[in-house]
This record gives sequence, structure tokens and C-alpha cells, in this order.
Amino acid sequence: MRMAELSAATGVPVPTIKYYIREGLVPAGRSVGRNQAAYDDSHVRKLRLVRSLAEYGGLTIAMIGELVRLLDDPDTDLFRLFGTAQNTITEERETRPGPHRDKAERIVADLVARRGWHCDLSDPAARTAVGVLATLSEVGLEDMIDRLDDYAAAVERIAEIDIDVLGDVEDRERAVEVVVVATVLGDPLFAALRRLTQASVSRRVYKLDKSPR
Amino acid sequence: MRMAELSAATGVPVPTIKYYIREGLVPAGRSVGRNQAAYDDSHVRKLRLVRSLAEYGGLTIAMIGELVRLLDDPDTDLFRLFGTAQNTITEERETRPGPHRDKAERIVADLVARRGWHCDLSDPAARTAVGVLATLSEVGLEDMIDRLDDYAAAVERIAEIDIDVLGDVEDRERAVEVVVVATVLGDPLFAALRRLTQASVSRRVYKLDKSPR
Repeated sequence: MRMAELSAATGVPVPTIKYYIREGLVPAGRSVGRNQAAYDDSHVRKLRLVRSLAEYGGLTIAMIGELVRLLDDPDTDLFRLFGTAQNTITEERETRPGPHRDKAERIVADLVARRGWHCDLSDPAARTAVGVLATLSEVGLEDMIDRLDDYAAAVERIAEIDIDVLGDVEDRERAVEVVVVATVLGDPLFAALRRLTQASVSRRVYKLDKSPR
Repeated sequence: MRMAELSAATGVPVPTIKYYIREGLVPAGRSVGRNQAAYDDSHVRKLRLVRSLAEYGGLTIAMIGELVRLLDDPDTDLFRLFGTAQNTITEERETRPGPHRDKAERIVADLVARRGWHCDLSDPAARTAVGVLATLSEVGLEDMIDRLDDYAAAVERIAEIDIDVLGDVEDRERAVEVVVVATVLGDPLFAALRRLTQASVSRRVYKLDKSPR
């Protein structure tokens, strides 16, 4: 297909497609004559992937480029891709040094040990957890920190379903795509579900809900 | 205390404090003479709150201003604050019209009905869920959509703990603060925990983990 058809098939405007090709996020078309190129289903698929990462992951073009290169590298194994995808899409935050950070670091290290998680405390995800816990402690929200194990158990359930979903994928190229999309799109989905659920749980708690459930 | 002491107590630089006061996020100090103002513990508390929202919520100054006005309004009830906090911090996304969106809208409506959630399908959280599901369907990640009820059950557990934590708060002013902070800081915390957990679950699945757990 021509670029105009590629644009129609995906809904991505032609200038955006040209930009993605220039940045190496989507491969160039097969040259079929002077200033003419042909595109196929692999372009449709890659374009949809790049757009979904750009729209929902809040990822920069540079971050998407890094992920796409990993996806295209036949030596990338799923486990490594998993870690890299996670580190790429987790914005690392510097936590102010001080007693709140020291305490949060101990809490995260204890949690990881207690639950038998395999992770490095220098990973961006661990640093983010430290930063959020330090902030919760700074604003005096210790109640939330006290329930960390309960939250962790619920999140472990989510991760188990994640891995179930990923495990169903046979084709390797597809599998790495799924890892990235599931990781990136899962966060806004769960945040949205948390809001939808909280509203009805809070109705029950604040006794606004008179109908039996 | 003077502004320099307020800055030392919170770690927020003096120019940032002045900016927050100018924008109405933190109340001005009590005037104690020409060009001199005094600040107290309520300023320390409000400054920490504003900073935690700005750092972790990814909220704009305008959004924080809206939340602070709600917090300061004695007529704001907890349930209403909950909804407003959620709508303020949930970035609404326009989903491209088409069969994927139509399908996603049906899926969300069915999910909400099936689980007995009380929410409006026009709320930003519901719109975000529709957008993510439409994108998952567009990139062919139907497996993740098929497990939506399992994910929803895990998220309901998180929301129950959220409401437990909020329910422990006696003082009303404190309670509204807690609602906002827990809602805003919970998302990055759960995303970080999801990454930490996935790594060890994926080690098990991909048989990289030889030690017994």
C-alpha cells in the first residue's frame, strides 16, 4: 500500500508517519520507484504499536525508539525485555535525603525481603516506591504505609494476571510487543479502575448507598 | 517563624514558597511589620501537601489550586471531594471514534453493571478506561481485555484498603487532605509495586528462578 493508504488504515496522519520513519520508530517502505514507497501489514502493526505507546504511556519519542530497537533485536530475550521496558517507562525520581528517605528505604528493603521479590533496590521502580513512601511519611500518611503488605498482596495478584496474559503468547515477536504494551497501558487502566471502584466503595462506607448490593 | 525558617523546615526553596503564595496554593503569612510576615505549623503542613501533589501527582499548578480551594471550603463533603479529586487528577483522553471505541464502551458499561459499581460513564476515569481498552483492542491485545474481571477484582481489593485507610481519619480537614494525597500518590506507588512484583513473577514463569520460594 501507499503512504496515504497506510494513513487511512491506521488513522495516523501522513506527517506523523513521516516523522516516525525519520526517527526510526517505523521502518521505511520498500522503494517502488522515484519518490514512491510501498508499505505492508508489518507497517500497520508497528504504527499502531508506536501510537499506543505515545498516547497512553506518556513516553517520549526517544524512549519509544529505545523500546522499538529492543523489540527489533533478535537477541533480546523476554526476561531482559521485561526489565528494560520497566526501567524505560518508569520515571526515576530523586528523593530528598533525610530521615524520611532513610526510613522509606528500610521499608522497601523489608517489603522486598518479606515477600521474596527478586529486584534490585537501585531499580527505578524501587527508587519510585522509596520516593512515594518518603512523601507519605513526610505528610503524615502513616496509615497508608501500615497497609503496604495488603496493597502489595493485591498488586501481586495483578502481576500474576499480567504474566498469565503474557504467557499465552506463542510468537516471539508478538510476545515482546505484548510485554511492552501490557506494561505501559496497564498503569492508566488500573488507575482508572481504581477510581471507578473507589467511588462505589466510598458510597457504601459513607452510607450514601441505600440499595442492597 | 520567618519565611527562611519555613523553607528550612520543609526543604522548599524561598522563591518556590513565594510562587505558591502568589498562586494562592499556600496562604500568606501573618503580617508582623513592614515587609515581614510570620508563618506557623499550618503553613508547614500546607506546603508539604502542595509539594507532594506537585512532585508525584504530575499535577499542574492550576489543578493543585482547584484541589486546595476544595480542601479549604468548609462545605466540601468527603464524598464530593473524592469525586472531584479523582476527576481533577484523571487526565481525560479523547478516544478516536470507530468500532474499537464502540466495543470498548460496551465492555466498560458491562463491567460497571456486572460489578455493581456506581459511576457515571461520562466520568474521566470511565473515559480513560474506554480509551485504554480501545487501544488494547486496536493492537490486538484481546487477552488482556478477556481478563478484565480478574484485574477488576484485584483493583477492588486496593480500593477497599484505600477506603479503610481513609476511614481511620477523625479530623475532617485532615480527612480531605488524606483523600487527595492517597488518590494522587497511590497510582505511582502501585505502578512501582507492579514492576517490582512482575520481575519476580516473570522469573518464576520463565524458569530463571532455581531457588525454592
